[in-house]
Amino acid sequence: MSEKYVYSFEEGKKEMKMLLGGKGANLAEMTSLGMPIPPGFTVTTEVCDLYYKNGRKHTPLVIEQIDKKLKELEEKQGKKLGDKEDPLLVSVRSGAAVSMPGMMDTVLNLGLNDESVIGIAKKTSNDRFAWDSYRRFIQMFGNVVMGVEHSQFEEVLDKVKETKGVELDTELDTDDLKEVVKGYKEVIQKEKGKSFPQNPREQLQMSIDAVFGSWNNPRAISYRRINDIKGLLGTAVNVQTMVFGNMGENSGTGVCFSRNPSTGENKFYGEYLMNAQGEDVVAGIRTPHPIKELEKAMPKCYKELVEIRDKLEKHYKDMQDMEFTIQEGKLYMLQTRNGKRTAAAAVKIAVDMEKEKLISKKEALMRVEPNQLNQLLHKQLDPIGKQKAEVLAKGLPASPGAAVGEVAFTAEKAHEWAQEGRKVILVRTETSPEDIEGMNAAQGILTSRGGMTSHAAVVARGMGKCCVAGCSDVNVKEKEGIFTVGNITVKEGDWITLDGTAGEVILGQVPTTDPSLSGDFGTLMEWADEVRKLGVRTNADTPKDAEVAKKFGAEGIGLCRTEHMFFEGERIKAVREMILSSNVEGRKRALVKLLPMQQGDFEGIFEVMGELPVTIRLLDPPLHEFLPHEEKDIEELAKEMNVKAGVLKDKVSSLHELNPMLGHRGCRLAITFPEIAEMQAEAIIKAAINTAKKTGKKIVPEIMIPLVGEVKELAYLREVVEKKVKEIIAKEKSSIKYKIGTMIEVPRGALTADAVAEHAEFFSFGTNDLTQMTFGFSRDDVGKFVPEYIEKGILEKDPFQVLDQTGVGQLVKMAVEKGRKTRKDLKLGICGEHGGEPSSVEFCHNAGLTYVSCSPYRVPIARLAAAHAVLKEKK
Amino acid sequence: MSEKYVYSFEEGKKEMKMLLGGKGANLAEMTSLGMPIPPGFTVTTEVCDLYYKNGRKHTPLVIEQIDKKLKELEEKQGKKLGDKEDPLLVSVRSGAAVSMPGMMDTVLNLGLNDESVIGIAKKTSNDRFAWDSYRRFIQMFGNVVMGVEHSQFEEVLDKVKETKGVELDTELDTDDLKEVVKGYKEVIQKEKGKSFPQNPREQLQMSIDAVFGSWNNPRAISYRRINDIKGLLGTAVNVQTMVFGNMGENSGTGVCFSRNPSTGENKFYGEYLMNAQGEDVVAGIRTPHPIKELEKAMPKCYKELVEIRDKLEKHYKDMQDMEFTIQEGKLYMLQTRNGKRTAAAAVKIAVDMEKEKLISKKEALMRVEPNQLNQLLHKQLDPIGKQKAEVLAKGLPASPGAAVGEVAFTAEKAHEWAQEGRKVILVRTETSPEDIEGMNAAQGILTSRGGMTSHAAVVARGMGKCCVAGCSDVNVKEKEGIFTVGNITVKEGDWITLDGTAGEVILGQVPTTDPSLSGDFGTLMEWADEVRKLGVRTNADTPKDAEVAKKFGAEGIGLCRTEHMFFEGERIKAVREMILSSNVEGRKRALVKLLPMQQGDFEGIFEVMGELPVTIRLLDPPLHEFLPHEEKDIEELAKEMNVKAGVLKDKVSSLHELNPMLGHRGCRLAITFPEIAEMQAEAIIKAAINTAKKTGKKIVPEIMIPLVGEVKELAYLREVVEKKVKEIIAKEKSSIKYKIGTMIEVPRGALTADAVAEHAEFFSFGTNDLTQMTFGFSRDDVGKFVPEYIEKGILEKDPFQVLDQTGVGQLVKMAVEKGRKTRKDLKLGICGEHGGEPSSVEFCHNAGLTYVSCSPYRVPIARLAAAHAVLKEKK
Repeated sequence: MSEKYVYSFEEGKKEMKMLLGGKGANLAEMTSLGMPIPPGFTVTTEVCDLYYKNGRKHTPLVIEQIDKKLKELEEKQGKKLGDKEDPLLVSVRSGAAVSMPGMMDTVLNLGLNDESVIGIAKKTSNDRFAWDSYRRFIQMFGNVVMGVEHSQFEEVLDKVKETKGVELDTELDTDDLKEVVKGYKEVIQKEKGKSFPQNPREQLQMSIDAVFGSWNNPRAISYRRINDIKGLLGTAVNVQTMVFGNMGENSGTGVCFSRNPSTGENKFYGEYLMNAQGEDVVAGIRTPHPIKELEKAMPKCYKELVEIRDKLEKHYKDMQDMEFTIQEGKLYMLQTRNGKRTAAAAVKIAVDMEKEKLISKKEALMRVEPNQLNQLLHKQLDPIGKQKAEVLAKGLPASPGAAVGEVAFTAEKAHEWAQEGRKVILVRTETSPEDIEGMNAAQGILTSRGGMTSHAAVVARGMGKCCVAGCSDVNVKEKEGIFTVGNITVKEGDWITLDGTAGEVILGQVPTTDPSLSGDFGTLMEWADEVRKLGVRTNADTPKDAEVAKKFGAEGIGLCRTEHMFFEGERIKAVREMILSSNVEGRKRALVKLLPMQQGDFEGIFEVMGELPVTIRLLDPPLHEFLPHEEKDIEELAKEMNVKAGVLKDKVSSLHELNPMLGHRGCRLAITFPEIAEMQAEAIIKAAINTAKKTGKKIVPEIMIPLVGEVKELAYLREVVEKKVKEIIAKEKSSIKYKIGTMIEVPRGALTADAVAEHAEFFSFGTNDLTQMTFGFSRDDVGKFVPEYIEKGILEKDPFQVLDQTGVGQLVKMAVEKGRKTRKDLKLGICGEHGGEPSSVEFCHNAGLTYVSCSPYRVPIARLAAAHAVLKEKK
Repeated sequence: MSEKYVYSFEEGKKEMKMLLGGKGANLAEMTSLGMPIPPGFTVTTEVCDLYYKNGRKHTPLVIEQIDKKLKELEEKQGKKLGDKEDPLLVSVRSGAAVSMPGMMDTVLNLGLNDESVIGIAKKTSNDRFAWDSYRRFIQMFGNVVMGVEHSQFEEVLDKVKETKGVELDTELDTDDLKEVVKGYKEVIQKEKGKSFPQNPREQLQMSIDAVFGSWNNPRAISYRRINDIKGLLGTAVNVQTMVFGNMGENSGTGVCFSRNPSTGENKFYGEYLMNAQGEDVVAGIRTPHPIKELEKAMPKCYKELVEIRDKLEKHYKDMQDMEFTIQEGKLYMLQTRNGKRTAAAAVKIAVDMEKEKLISKKEALMRVEPNQLNQLLHKQLDPIGKQKAEVLAKGLPASPGAAVGEVAFTAEKAHEWAQEGRKVILVRTETSPEDIEGMNAAQGILTSRGGMTSHAAVVARGMGKCCVAGCSDVNVKEKEGIFTVGNITVKEGDWITLDGTAGEVILGQVPTTDPSLSGDFGTLMEWADEVRKLGVRTNADTPKDAEVAKKFGAEGIGLCRTEHMFFEGERIKAVREMILSSNVEGRKRALVKLLPMQQGDFEGIFEVMGELPVTIRLLDPPLHEFLPHEEKDIEELAKEMNVKAGVLKDKVSSLHELNPMLGHRGCRLAITFPEIAEMQAEAIIKAAINTAKKTGKKIVPEIMIPLVGEVKELAYLREVVEKKVKEIIAKEKSSIKYKIGTMIEVPRGALTADAVAEHAEFFSFGTNDLTQMTFGFSRDDVGKFVPEYIEKGILEKDPFQVLDQTGVGQLVKMAVEKGRKTRKDLKLGICGEHGGEPSSVEFCHNAGLTYVSCSPYRVPIARLAAAHAVLKEKK
């Protein structure tokens, strides 16, 4: 670490993000680009780190450097903090290397006290402005720095308004505001037992420390966890000369994007409010005007802003999210950063910028986070269903997509219901950072106030969640547990549907449909396919799933589970008959009934997939899953099957296992009941032969034997399966080819992969089970401790969501190495849930797998992640 | 493979066991030692292997070589097979490289037919002998070679005896025997549709093939599995000139041991029968005379036999088990081999032979199989309990020890009941090889017929199982399901007690006591301790267990489980109170009650162990194990605890897990409820400090954190535990030392052992759980498929009994290597059940562990196995 802790804006640049935070680095960059930036300085993130390490204290060197930079700023501006005649006012803002909007604290108008308020009034010749600024400052400082509840201040304000008989803040005059200031100071004294500090240097230090303190407030910690932000030292603090958007009707403030962050359209986009401070726009309390209207209102400022927008986008080569303030007709830039965007926008902007030669194809690919595509792939409202539906209310289309759920009015309820597995729409007047957990848990978000850049809208887009914002017809009565639209009342727990793309709210549940993928999306996917080396298959058990996955670009089926096929209609009867048979003959009789149905299933899938590879896994779950467990259900079934209830009960209890996950399942079943594997092999091969004949295509089925931990299990079953397969091929005089392979999902399978590969033409890593056994975590039971593990930092991620590269990954790598040693051309895939998770896909690429296989909706994510893996590797 | 398939006895030697089988090699060896061996030849084990490989057919070369050796034998003896005047008769006997007594087939008197029977009658001038031999041969050949049921022949014999009005076979005269021969031949014709073969060469070939065939009969396969006999090509076949012990009162046959196989005493030991064939002694049908009586009966033969015994023991340097036959006053040796012996005998013989300078200490150590010690360590009848008990009947002390169980009259029942967890005494008139499974399942065996070398006695000694044989007062009425002794009736299912050392049967259950270990045992253990490098600790949860283990030579406690301490009396109440608490305070209140009890437990253990290390594992099982699960029990407990039944039910169901083995247990419990670990740490350290003060000894407790899969789990808990420990040490102003370490029992723990070792001073491999997770086998559920796996050869051994070196062992080795890389002086132990299993102990030695820990009764086994590991390594 250097010993320089404070940088003036002139001293920084955009590359210094880690040290100065995003805001600070970009203010510095804009300063050197000659843009109109109010001068200031940045206290570095290192200071934040030191502050915590020293038990929330600063070293003398830090204080000294702040003093020095403050003095330079005062000299530059020709004003002094707290001056009676012409005081310097500053803002104190947080700014980490990664943007965390609204998560940390900000203090504006700092430097005002009982004396300087008079100075500023004189200097601006605007008494009301001075006292309004002072009361805002006390309120913000009292709340943010001193920890007095917001409502305490509101009470004072309301009382003054009541006395005066007015409704709006703007209706209060200078004397009223003086009254408010007095009241505010009393509130602080009463609540905190100390007075509001009059010394501006003390105000400054307290504010800086408050910002550092807000780095570790619960909502900031929560935000970093949800957004997976790690490895930062802390936040920087920016101290900047105040400019005022609230100095009258030729002042204002706004937020704008160089392109549309929702659609990606290359059009200047934003909102502003006249006579307001920046927080008014972001907080969504007043509904702002579209940026276009500024052209008429203040043409000079607008032109300058558009020029800056163009310059910044070319400079940063990415879409910019900017904040500006106009003080008495003069434009100031307060912030620029790469703008958050929806997935659709990210794709469009990336493809457009490549066409505009701003960035390369590879850069374009890296501009879209694979997980973001989730948004694009999520369902939309079914057009026909929607035609029939009556729109209850219309708001702003703040984040696209569709969401169906039960109404919840608090973040807590939304979170709680989601934990129970219910689908929830969070309905709030407006959201605030405290609502983060509830928003994360909800299917979609509906607010009655706030604009396209309100908290709800920004956060929802970031999360890829459907959001309708500023829907003013909706009247939220949280305490009564209802919202009303005209004379219609919607209760908490009622179902509603949101169309985030249209900004519409619909009563009840509207069917949803698959997303249609735009041309830009296709282009980006093509680029990804050019780059990636890893194959992408899908996990699909039905022709329908296979169809969807193929549309999403799946290059085969990596996992076709056969057990789901056993549950439908007549089949479950035959399955149960098989289970209840006490001998091979009885089982074979029942299996004969299943054979044509299984064969039909496979024919359907082969027809869809054509010559693409299809890996079919033999029966995996323990047999008791096919029988009822409740006394009543058992008795009913016994009647239906015409067996004694006692016999059925005995069977159920004889199949009971203490740890079914580690029990009689997978290949263990087929070893004790080889006739099941024989039937399945027969169904697969007959289906392949039939489909090949019917379609004229070359069908090469891959038969996969699950849960192998010992090579002899595989050798034994390979013989059983192959005998049957060869018998059928001979009988049908077919020349069909097939492959036999195994899942590697038991640690011992990985440890002995060299031996296992002797009998396997392919491995497919079942990382769900492999994770269970490597950690000794039952996926069904980890809810009791894994969330706490993540909270306590014992685990970084839920290993069932993100592949544990340290442990599970070590076994995967070992198995790859050992397997390939035995069989050079061994095909290697992964078919756990991890196959569609970007960091896991990257791992698979690096581990040298042949392909990943994931659920149909994650196929595009895997394709892009596989491309990212290659591009990251090259770096 | 050479192309020599048949060896005359002159061509072999004892080192050729693998090729000639034990019997063949030793017959050859004795031949070259100049001993009186009837000439013959051996068809090699390679021929057995080839026979199976060729689909039970021989190559022409094999037949040619048999022909050649047969011709040589005929020339040497001056007799021809099937000769009308003076025929050569031979025996055909099995003989594998490892002795499998009674498991395979034997044919005697081969060469007799309708013509040669007359020749032999003439030559021996003994018509009755000739026809008796012929009828015996037909019966044996018909049964063994042609597969006619034994009872079919018995029927014919009984009918002739009935007609004649006699009871004993010996009362039949030549004409009667001719009648029997006729009847036997008819039975064969009727049963098999073909006649008894008159061609002696055909008889010979069929008999050789029958012996080869018996290699794979079910009881032989069973025997090999139970006795873990592997890697053999098959059996050899010995064709040997017949000598007859049944040629009258100056003929006889016997079995003898160079030392007492039951006690090891250096005294000539054995039994013989006059006018009998060898099988009569072994089968236990007639009760034979002690060998000592032969000295009087036939002093010359006895003297010669004693000389041979001395010579053979010196030659083989081990206790010999010999078979001999006296034909008309002339002694012939038919077999010698290293004798099976009880553990007590094995120990005594090994120690004695070392003293006699026959063998070295190291050889003596290798003479005792570690697992055999089990016998010595098993309980004996409590002397006081026994004094009070009334002896029901007295038989032969065939195999020492004590056994208590329910009477079962068939092997099937014994097996079935044992499967249900019941303790069984198998009671039979006599046992036969078909009873093997039942004998294996029984606690002990009681027979009413047969001597010390009867089937029951030999097999029981081999199994280390208590056996009382030849208890003629016991009248077994299998069909009625009772046995009677005088007018006392014992029903199937009644409890009896056997004293195998005294040969006594007692009604009811007599208490048993710990074995007292003889001086020779102590000597052998001392030698083992001199040699071994691996430490041997014990798994003990109570001062009593610790005491026992210390007596057996345990050098510390490797695993002290604390959960057992939670179940007793008042404690379970406090434990339940803790579980039912909904907050930390409630839990802490309950834990305060547990603290003094836990502390007391540990003080007791520390007092016993003194300065020996004691490793205490923190609470491991899931909390639901401490609550009832049945509705009724829950309601009762709710009343008792004064809580609502509903609340308790909710708690029970909230604690329910689908796979508890992979659930909320081990360190995961302590991470969510650190207060439990704190209480345990406090109890351990306070107990150590108190005991150190009281005894003046240096107590160094080792605190072990279970189920660690991720280093941060350990780091977190180490901090929790160490904070508490340091607090107490400071408060008590103690200077006590302690260690903190972890179990390696989760695959991920092994995979990341380098990181884990950063926070662990020792590792203890929990190979039970490690086996569960590495294989994905639930120990509680494997009964459904592991037996079938072993039967189908998919697994060689139950991996919960014998450590799987390929998979689980690979993880152990990896963890050893990684752990030591981080921490050179890392202490490494194993505390799974495998710690007392000899092959696993050998593995632990080779893997470089510091110690093994096993149940108290297995400590001596582990000590000897550890010595064997060193001695094997040196080879």
